[in-house]
Amino acid sequence: MSAAASPIFTDLYQWTMALSYLENKKAHDSAVFEMFFRECPFEGEYAIMAGHDRIRQVLESFSLTEKEWSYLESLPELQPSKLQALKPHMHLNDVRVFGIAEGEPVFSRTPILQVEGPLFKVQLLESALLNAVNFAILCTTYARRIRQVAPNHKLVEFGLRRAQGPDGAMTATRSAFLGGFDGTSNVLGGMNWGIPVFGTMAHSFVQSFTSFTDDLLDWNGRSIQDLINKHRPSQPTHQGELAAFLAYAKSFPKSSLLLVDTYDAMASGVPNAICTFKILRELGHTPLGIRLDSGDLVYQSKEARRLLDEAGFQSASIFASNDLSERIIASLQAQGSAIGGFGVGTHLVTCKDQPALGAVYKMVEIKNEPRIKISEQTAKISIPGAKNVYRLVGKDGRYLLDLMQLASEPPPQPGKAIWAHHPFDPFRKAEVTPSAVIELLTPLFENGAWRSKIDLQASKASSAKSLKLLREDILRRENPTPYKVSLSENLKETLEHCLKQEAPRRHLA
Amino acid sequence: MSAAASPIFTDLYQWTMALSYLENKKAHDSAVFEMFFRECPFEGEYAIMAGHDRIRQVLESFSLTEKEWSYLESLPELQPSKLQALKPHMHLNDVRVFGIAEGEPVFSRTPILQVEGPLFKVQLLESALLNAVNFAILCTTYARRIRQVAPNHKLVEFGLRRAQGPDGAMTATRSAFLGGFDGTSNVLGGMNWGIPVFGTMAHSFVQSFTSFTDDLLDWNGRSIQDLINKHRPSQPTHQGELAAFLAYAKSFPKSSLLLVDTYDAMASGVPNAICTFKILRELGHTPLGIRLDSGDLVYQSKEARRLLDEAGFQSASIFASNDLSERIIASLQAQGSAIGGFGVGTHLVTCKDQPALGAVYKMVEIKNEPRIKISEQTAKISIPGAKNVYRLVGKDGRYLLDLMQLASEPPPQPGKAIWAHHPFDPFRKAEVTPSAVIELLTPLFENGAWRSKIDLQASKASSAKSLKLLREDILRRENPTPYKVSLSENLKETLEHCLKQEAPRRHLA
Repeated sequence: MSAAASPIFTDLYQWTMALSYLENKKAHDSAVFEMFFRECPFEGEYAIMAGHDRIRQVLESFSLTEKEWSYLESLPELQPSKLQALKPHMHLNDVRVFGIAEGEPVFSRTPILQVEGPLFKVQLLESALLNAVNFAILCTTYARRIRQVAPNHKLVEFGLRRAQGPDGAMTATRSAFLGGFDGTSNVLGGMNWGIPVFGTMAHSFVQSFTSFTDDLLDWNGRSIQDLINKHRPSQPTHQGELAAFLAYAKSFPKSSLLLVDTYDAMASGVPNAICTFKILRELGHTPLGIRLDSGDLVYQSKEARRLLDEAGFQSASIFASNDLSERIIASLQAQGSAIGGFGVGTHLVTCKDQPALGAVYKMVEIKNEPRIKISEQTAKISIPGAKNVYRLVGKDGRYLLDLMQLASEPPPQPGKAIWAHHPFDPFRKAEVTPSAVIELLTPLFENGAWRSKIDLQASKASSAKSLKLLREDILRRENPTPYKVSLSENLKETLEHCLKQEAPRRHLA
Repeated sequence: MSAAASPIFTDLYQWTMALSYLENKKAHDSAVFEMFFRECPFEGEYAIMAGHDRIRQVLESFSLTEKEWSYLESLPELQPSKLQALKPHMHLNDVRVFGIAEGEPVFSRTPILQVEGPLFKVQLLESALLNAVNFAILCTTYARRIRQVAPNHKLVEFGLRRAQGPDGAMTATRSAFLGGFDGTSNVLGGMNWGIPVFGTMAHSFVQSFTSFTDDLLDWNGRSIQDLINKHRPSQPTHQGELAAFLAYAKSFPKSSLLLVDTYDAMASGVPNAICTFKILRELGHTPLGIRLDSGDLVYQSKEARRLLDEAGFQSASIFASNDLSERIIASLQAQGSAIGGFGVGTHLVTCKDQPALGAVYKMVEIKNEPRIKISEQTAKISIPGAKNVYRLVGKDGRYLLDLMQLASEPPPQPGKAIWAHHPFDPFRKAEVTPSAVIELLTPLFENGAWRSKIDLQASKASSAKSLKLLREDILRRENPTPYKVSLSENLKETLEHCLKQEAPRRHLA
């Protein structure tokens, strides 16, 4: 994990604000901030909560080294004497963090984290918490969207080389798995989290062989020259490629997935792979399959499938890579490609379709008074007040809607009707009788310590289960239905009161 | 810096290939790989070399802990006995890395890194080197493109919260500065590299004030009540906002850049800021300016400029943020906005316009024999052979073209005509007489040690100078002219020879 989680890894304004809060005797006022996003990514209507490992890292690293203090003191904007006054308070014993469980579906405006504590601390945490969460949610959501279009395929994350440094790659590996991928090519990801790792060969391996050598023909004392003669492709194929396939098969007879497009997939790669597979079969091994990494994946996969089947390798799979995205995979599926697994790299680790989730972190309460951020754009208005958030379950067991309440309100009761209001549209409200009520924000951090179990495998499983509790029209790729995120009667009134109180009078003339 | 630079931070196939190279007695064959990209990003015709700090980190971390070896040994794909045989060779004493200097403009197909050494080591380095370079180049290039459209504005990188973890944020901070930005909000970036840090307040600071207190009015024993009465805005503005501005001005009288859009920029924020500035002026301070973070930045900046000027604050600047991109900044410039500085976050740290550079790392030579990667797409064919790369300078002192030669060829001489060939178009070649010749690939790493000076400030300066040596039509945003990247006569022949030798015969019937 990166060393950059100390509170010096933040935007400067967090520190200037902290000092001015201190000077203005507000630094220790009790404050509540919440994190949410205004729009679900990828033109969808859901996202998947993620990033708890990094949230934990941020909260457990809330202290500065002497070198870091010295640097802060050296900045002309900051004042050493005031920084000195903050020093004894640089701990999080009086900060509480609540959050939604990793893997749970989340929606626009649902508070996903709520942070309570002295104003200056809660403020100082902002940038690093957003950094911890934004990409993790985005990438997990994208992985889940790919899993939704390829429910039964092998999905492997391949993006290490295109991520923003090791942190980006590691978060992508973890997020892809949480979102439903089967594994990764990233060995460190495998080591850290027990994620299955996959990978066999690159083009360079194939290129590095030019001809057969005596070494190559000798498989533990048995020459395979006779088998090569027997199974050699009928057409003239690239001999270096065949040598490379045989060399790899000799090293890994149980896990030979051969990359067939170094020279020409259909004219050379597939025939050479089939020759190699026939030799493996004679020696008692079951070949794994081939990988296509360029060209028309529909045509090539169907043709390769036919050739593999004709040669009796029905169980050999066809794995595809090459700039695959959710959209391209959906299109390959629609065209009935013969692909059994996908390696997804660039599009997953950069979330190219929408490379940023706009999660924000807004003050909602100070000294027990609700606070609001007004905006000319209604969608950018924040919902004031420290909240409890409930997910109400309908009589079919599916999620009905999320309901935010003021922290002072009693929780909704199963079987009892309540009103749920749209946050900004006064004409939209519904009476709801939940069959069950789930409290969404649970304690992550209290009394200076992390309180929640981080278990990637368990979160992955519960995430897949939760997804099944969403209506299919919410999960749909095209034109999905928004999930309802609503306010209680009291919270709605608080919002309206704050709006009335805080909005400046505009005068047109 | 991240701990993830050990060779376990890689794709699994690098390890399976290493073991198979070993078994096939090729692990120690001398190999040359080169890194390049096929297309410049952002529909442009240039990119900026970057990432040397991370390349260095990768090369200096080429060893595994016992825990990492154990994990590798536990993988069913890998064989403990073969891993054991690699162990004594896990050093880079026999690997040499050459690269282009940080900050230099680079173009499609120019080799940007060349790595020479035993095949298995050069292979094992691939994924981490690509991870080190891809985002750094991309982000530096985007920063430079913004600097090109706003040559005289203050440019500050604001993206920490939207990056892929700390690594992504740190690379973005460093890249933005290298690409021509003035500074960052990222305090750790400032500490690590001496980059100027900027920042004053967020909306939460403004929200946290509701009214005036005695403390607020007391500026080191002098009450400012009289000054407030004298300079109070003529219209009814938000009193909490005015209190926040005065509180901040009291804490930072020399560096008050006030965020004016928490409630209503024109109806409340700007009048409150001008009131605060008048009080600061009476107390002998020069206010810094205002920040706009929403709404129509052209209209608001012009109107705010007029009001600030009328009040005598001609030197107060207007700083803008809010999802700014190269395109939006170019449009603000074209509309004659009154903005003096830009904070750029999401678009810069995600490179939203194109979130991945497709840099690749290809084998070009093994045992002194050139190797080629064929593809059905001509653009994906690699250029074989270990190379020297020269940048030829014309008689006006500007860069003419890049010329790749086989390592065995003598360098081009100033004043002596040579032929430069287009890599793939046989009809395009030019006779060139350079006035000067720059060798582009210089040693970065040899004999197990880093050899090149990494000096961010110097690279930033030399980068800006080099950019001036490119023709303006190459730098142009719309429909730029490609820079010529060409092959010597000998290299062109080598390419054709390899193509003929390696391309499989296709037969249509």
